[in-house]
Amino acid sequence: MTADAGQPAVASESGTVLARAEAEQVASRDAALRDRARRVIPGGMYGHQNAATWPAPFPQFLERGRGCRIWDVDGREYVDFVCSFGPIVLGHAHPAVEAAVERQRALADCQNGPSPRMVELAERLVELVPHADWAMFAKNGTDATTLTVSIARAATGRRKVLVARGAYHGSAPWCTPRPAGTTPEDRAHLIPFVYNDLASVEAAADQAGGDLAGVLVSAFRHDARFDQEECDSAFARGVRALCDRRGAVLVLDDVRAGFRLHLGGSWEPLGVRPDLSAYSKAIANGYPLAAVLGRDSLRDAAQQVFVTGSFWFAAVPMAAALATLEALEAERGIERMTRAGGLLREGLARQARAHGLRITQSGPVQLPFMTFTADVAAGTFDRANVFTAEAARRGVWLHPWHNWFLSAAHSDADVRLALERTDPAFAAVRARFGSDTIPPLTGGR
Amino acid sequence: MTADAGQPAVASESGTVLARAEAEQVASRDAALRDRARRVIPGGMYGHQNAATWPAPFPQFLERGRGCRIWDVDGREYVDFVCSFGPIVLGHAHPAVEAAVERQRALADCQNGPSPRMVELAERLVELVPHADWAMFAKNGTDATTLTVSIARAATGRRKVLVARGAYHGSAPWCTPRPAGTTPEDRAHLIPFVYNDLASVEAAADQAGGDLAGVLVSAFRHDARFDQEECDSAFARGVRALCDRRGAVLVLDDVRAGFRLHLGGSWEPLGVRPDLSAYSKAIANGYPLAAVLGRDSLRDAAQQVFVTGSFWFAAVPMAAALATLEALEAERGIERMTRAGGLLREGLARQARAHGLRITQSGPVQLPFMTFTADVAAGTFDRANVFTAEAARRGVWLHPWHNWFLSAAHSDADVRLALERTDPAFAAVRARFGSDTIPPLTGGR
Repeated sequence: MTADAGQPAVASESGTVLARAEAEQVASRDAALRDRARRVIPGGMYGHQNAATWPAPFPQFLERGRGCRIWDVDGREYVDFVCSFGPIVLGHAHPAVEAAVERQRALADCQNGPSPRMVELAERLVELVPHADWAMFAKNGTDATTLTVSIARAATGRRKVLVARGAYHGSAPWCTPRPAGTTPEDRAHLIPFVYNDLASVEAAADQAGGDLAGVLVSAFRHDARFDQEECDSAFARGVRALCDRRGAVLVLDDVRAGFRLHLGGSWEPLGVRPDLSAYSKAIANGYPLAAVLGRDSLRDAAQQVFVTGSFWFAAVPMAAALATLEALEAERGIERMTRAGGLLREGLARQARAHGLRITQSGPVQLPFMTFTADVAAGTFDRANVFTAEAARRGVWLHPWHNWFLSAAHSDADVRLALERTDPAFAAVRARFGSDTIPPLTGGR
Repeated sequence: MTADAGQPAVASESGTVLARAEAEQVASRDAALRDRARRVIPGGMYGHQNAATWPAPFPQFLERGRGCRIWDVDGREYVDFVCSFGPIVLGHAHPAVEAAVERQRALADCQNGPSPRMVELAERLVELVPHADWAMFAKNGTDATTLTVSIARAATGRRKVLVARGAYHGSAPWCTPRPAGTTPEDRAHLIPFVYNDLASVEAAADQAGGDLAGVLVSAFRHDARFDQEECDSAFARGVRALCDRRGAVLVLDDVRAGFRLHLGGSWEPLGVRPDLSAYSKAIANGYPLAAVLGRDSLRDAAQQVFVTGSFWFAAVPMAAALATLEALEAERGIERMTRAGGLLREGLARQARAHGLRITQSGPVQLPFMTFTADVAAGTFDRANVFTAEAARRGVWLHPWHNWFLSAAHSDADVRLALERTDPAFAAVRARFGSDTIPPLTGGR
């Protein structure tokens, strides 16, 4: 397979008969890799990229990415609406980011100390994010959320942290969604509330009493397997006021949404500023980096907490982050994602209506999600699985039960192409499950 | 500054008067960056690379690395015996590793799923490390040690984990060496023992009783600020037997030592095989990666634990790891590090004797450490600070209180050059503190 950015090795829809035959012939590369993986990796794969949790046509192994297109190991091309589960915010292999990476690689990456890029990036983030007076860097989103909790505890000398029930804040023992391997003590000081329900936060805070260190809250409600909920601004203001009243630290978990909703932090449009925020995913267009940003009053506490990592101060991901933030601004990346996400949402709504299928599209259009009403009623993902499977078969990568991600690389033409392919996927759902109660539109209004 | 691999921008010892003048002129780049950093990073820096904990002439900010040479932001060149605190095992920017990285970057890095490199790397590690039947990957050494503890708990249904007092296993709340921001519950199920003291492990296991999940033990005792202790083989065998007898999981923390002592795991020379091992640092010559390797009986437990990370399955660090392991074998890297480390140790011993200074050199020569006997007696690092400061001033990067790291890039000539520069550093210690009781050798035997 060549590395030519424009040409997939095997054309999918427009390919010749020969290309199709080749595709069939190599169609077992993914299966062969899965067989090999099962021998040397527990379950063959683990974590959020485990294809065992997706319908059959999804491949486990990917080969290549350029812009908003990706190719699996069997040469099949997809319009990518998952964007590596968030990191790819400008498109795969963005030229300006890759150029910055090249420049830094010619110098060094992982050294005995940080490079000047670390200072430049901290300065850039402090300039960009209004609530931030300082920055610390790590590798994983989990590193960042864990550090915010530690800083909140160090600052207040208290222990209790309020978290929304069902929210994902990482996969360390204190926050992993599965109990295997954890102990009750790992979450001894967490108290749950319900997202967007201020009374539940007040009740949780009452339960914490004088031991309330902080409130950890996602930018919006993006719990996997559920319709998303945008953050209610009264809720955000209420949580802010509660923290101020009780001397607790308000932590915004912006790992998933960060730099897709607003470059100054995802709650800027709500006019609510946290004391600490956690970033990762989109910060460096796929290069491994996480950040905690904080206000001045928490600087001393941040300095007391001992955290570090062998690769945390490496220069290349920081150079990539500087270039990513610059390109997001210069290319008006959020505007582009918003436009592409809006077009996708409109198109899917139109198609679902035309096929007599009731759907819910939720969350900001830059991080969209879609469920079938009949699936939600039945507590299944049967229709979502058929829909995303048929879309994947035709070259559109969506996700059946996790929110999707747009990038600045999604053009109108990309969305149009994707929609040409989702239409037969809706048809397949209708053929398999029948239409919902609403009759399909037959024209006119 | 050019990216020419052979030429530092400002020559240090052999430079012209002009180059020296230029060096003086820009000598404030590090200071200026520190000033800027103090405004936007708590304390100006944090973690294990915080220069505030090293004597004055050490810079905080690094610019470039090639082989075993590094350059700070003021253009000063050093022979590097810290190797980025472990990751650089083949030398900075090793050609074969960089070529593998280039090939993978031309395809993709962080995608919706892993690349074939993940399977290839898991296969390679299972082939290389005798105790391993499977592999899982993460980013930080802390990710790996944390995962081993979770797997041990999931496998046994028990909670207690024995850890050596003072051992460093990472910086998550359960293991960070500083209490700020942690709660007692974070380490509720840890029971301490003393490294190399089997009776203390037995006592700790008795305390755990039927709730003993596992024993987490470093490859050798490399606690910062202390002389190192190689692992006693009777101790290793005893811990293995204890785990077998009590149905507990033996976990080797090979994050620091891995791939510097033995490619099959650091306890292979002792003939003792753990059930799980944690790797990071040297696995990919500076690219961010960590791994947990385990035996077949722990495969199901590993599969139950939910862990993941946005960048864990990225292809570039895995391509780098494959190339690193290949180069370590092809270049007989461990042999080269051992030779260079041996020459360094001999040279330092000879110089210390000649200057009438008593020192202890401890640990394997690939991860050496040196203390001054009079410092240890006084509970200080006064002589170590002067020694490493004077060495740094002359272009040799050592560490006053943390073990050092050799790489396969250290040639005899590099070590000879370094020793030419450490001799005046010993002289400076002697001039400042006087000689110890032993008179200097004056020739003869």
